[in-house]
Amino acid sequence: MQNGKIDAISLYEDIQKIKEQAPLVHNITNYVVMNSTANALFAIGASPVMAHAIEEVEEMVGISRALVINIGTLSELWIEAMQLAMKKAKEKNIPIIFDPVGAGATRLRTDTCHKLLNKANPSIIRGNASEIRALFLAEGGTKGVDSTHSADDAIESAKELSKKFNCVISISGKTDIIIEGEKIIRINNGHRMMTKVTGLGCTATALTGAFAAVNSSPFIAAAHGMALMGIAGEIAAEKSTGPGSLQVQFFDTLYNLKEEDIIKRLKLE
Amino acid sequence: MQNGKIDAISLYEDIQKIKEQAPLVHNITNYVVMNSTANALFAIGASPVMAHAIEEVEEMVGISRALVINIGTLSELWIEAMQLAMKKAKEKNIPIIFDPVGAGATRLRTDTCHKLLNKANPSIIRGNASEIRALFLAEGGTKGVDSTHSADDAIESAKELSKKFNCVISISGKTDIIIEGEKIIRINNGHRMMTKVTGLGCTATALTGAFAAVNSSPFIAAAHGMALMGIAGEIAAEKSTGPGSLQVQFFDTLYNLKEEDIIKRLKLE
Amino acid sequence: MQNGKIDAISLYEDIQKIKEQAPLVHNITNYVVMNSTANALFAIGASPVMAHAIEEVEEMVGISRALVINIGTLSELWIEAMQLAMKKAKEKNIPIIFDPVGAGATRLRTDTCHKLLNKANPSIIRGNASEIRALFLAEGGTKGVDSTHSADDAIESAKELSKKFNCVISISGKTDIIIEGEKIIRINNGHRMMTKVTGLGCTATALTGAFAAVNSSPFIAAAHGMALMGIAGEIAAEKSTGPGSLQVQFFDTLYNLKEEDIIKRLKLE
Repeated sequence: MQNGKIDAISLYEDIQKIKEQAPLVHNITNYVVMNSTANALFAIGASPVMAHAIEEVEEMVGISRALVINIGTLSELWIEAMQLAMKKAKEKNIPIIFDPVGAGATRLRTDTCHKLLNKANPSIIRGNASEIRALFLAEGGTKGVDSTHSADDAIESAKELSKKFNCVISISGKTDIIIEGEKIIRINNGHRMMTKVTGLGCTATALTGAFAAVNSSPFIAAAHGMALMGIAGEIAAEKSTGPGSLQVQFFDTLYNLKEEDIIKRLKLE
Repeated sequence: MQNGKIDAISLYEDIQKIKEQAPLVHNITNYVVMNSTANALFAIGASPVMAHAIEEVEEMVGISRALVINIGTLSELWIEAMQLAMKKAKEKNIPIIFDPVGAGATRLRTDTCHKLLNKANPSIIRGNASEIRALFLAEGGTKGVDSTHSADDAIESAKELSKKFNCVISISGKTDIIIEGEKIIRINNGHRMMTKVTGLGCTATALTGAFAAVNSSPFIAAAHGMALMGIAGEIAAEKSTGPGSLQVQFFDTLYNLKEEDIIKRLKLE
Repeated sequence: MQNGKIDAISLYEDIQKIKEQAPLVHNITNYVVMNSTANALFAIGASPVMAHAIEEVEEMVGISRALVINIGTLSELWIEAMQLAMKKAKEKNIPIIFDPVGAGATRLRTDTCHKLLNKANPSIIRGNASEIRALFLAEGGTKGVDSTHSADDAIESAKELSKKFNCVISISGKTDIIIEGEKIIRINNGHRMMTKVTGLGCTATALTGAFAAVNSSPFIAAAHGMALMGIAGEIAAEKSTGPGSLQVQFFDTLYNLKEEDIIKRLKLE
């Protein structure tokens, strides 16, 4: 599948692989979403583990098949743990999926991203347009290239970042955009009510981790992750009366997703 | 609205303002409720952010329109972060909403409240009767004034605290009571099953933060916060078969609340 | 009830006691499950408190009727807090329920269990077969006794641990097994979809804490805890379309459980 086509069939095949292999996905993530991202990973068939102690992260990542780093509620010891885990993951060729939550909002977040990314480049960076843009600026990019209202606004920044860190950039928005160098794919799934549920961006990152555990192409894994988010979010939203039931239905949908749902709904460009 | 009437119209107007302005509400809160309070803030239309690192709280509060401090799962570094954030909020005239979770249960909690409140007085303190009573005693109040079985039992303590800290006291209970000096308003909404969902008190505090972000009167913001909690809780409980579905329906109700629901249900005294 | 029979009547009686007494259950637990275990404790009628600061854990455990220790997201300060709380609980004869989450996965987890258990033996250790097996090995047990595919595979390890620490071992699995020395009881309730919801094992531990608060026999408390989990899980699963709704229905079921549900469903051996 490394150079394969990305379509409903490839997505469904990778979901089946996740269910069969139940890959251990190690998350060093924020307090807000630990429960919901663990539940999303379980629902799709992966095995989540959350562990952040500097005494154990290297050992834990060593038995995992993907490492998800999310800086949503940073503090000093956690940054150190992230660094140790990322270094170990690189040594062991375990894919790293990095979520720069709130990059650009405070110097701590922007600087931490800069520090972490330059010590161990991830396979995939997944963020929204503002975050990707902030990372670009933190790497010495010049202003004025992108605005940050939609994923499309961060394309130039993403291309530069992709080249600098030799990684895939996955930008979430109304349209999700996956970029690797000059290669680009757009995913037009999802539902506006998803923005009213906390941590669905972080969930996208975690699910991308599950796909990276079973597919050696970060580009395909990133596309599959966002496509699954969008499709499951659409189905869940249609069955919901608000963001509370959307979260519940989202887990149920991940658990029950059928190949025909994917075929019927997937909108790639 | 500073000196305006508090009624269904004023509440609905402020909800519309929250939806239009999507104010950033900075929460330094406890681990238990981070997810659910973020979801409540999203559901009503606000933009929650959770951040606690001493390296970033001042910067984060500087871009926020309200600061919610909740001591539910305290530890040393968090206390320091709360202090820094509250000080910065005072400097910038950003309203602080303070939730003294468990004040009176342990010395750490009571002493931390004393320390924090005396360095930077909040706009609103929101707690249950026992917590308000414990704060009063920690400030040198004499025993024997209040019992602590209902919000009414903490009225005298609340009046004293309100005067000492020049702030509004919002006491939750079967009847919610909002106090500012000698001014008092009672809200008779809510449902008994709400006490079986963890963190709905903390959610009340967070939602009060959203109202304080759009209304310069802490008294009105506190009343609106508790009125919204009570009304949404009632509607959610009627659609629920237990506390699990109540939590889900609560988010959906916040998202869908209509002016006529408020008009029909609001019970102020 | 100390030496009483374990059956549907005894379980229902203890549930009624929990509802009447609303015992305070002090949890030092992991970030992932704080919200869901608090909600489970509330739903059954107990009063959960989460507190981990070394400055307050001894005071908090002193006013509690059970202490639940769960090592799911360890770090150094938390280990110290667990140790202080466990020591105080022993002094005050407050039952300790210990959940060795992930024991065997990393040295930090295995070593921490060893350290904590040898300083203050709990009333009940509740884990899955792999965890119980890992604890046995950490205490100098020889390999080759147990495999770890089902609760049955950990019986010999559990018997040895029970004797060494003079405590009850509660092993969760398709069949749950409660062991005290040579005494053994099997519970055949539950539903396979429960493994797709994060933290239901941790919830079992927390609910066991509520039973230990109202029943002086750790063996009966452990059996009641697992029986309640299994029965509520079955009922919830039958009303659910996936793991998201299962979690919601689980809380509702705990809140509404009837004696006849227990009589009809309980499967003990």
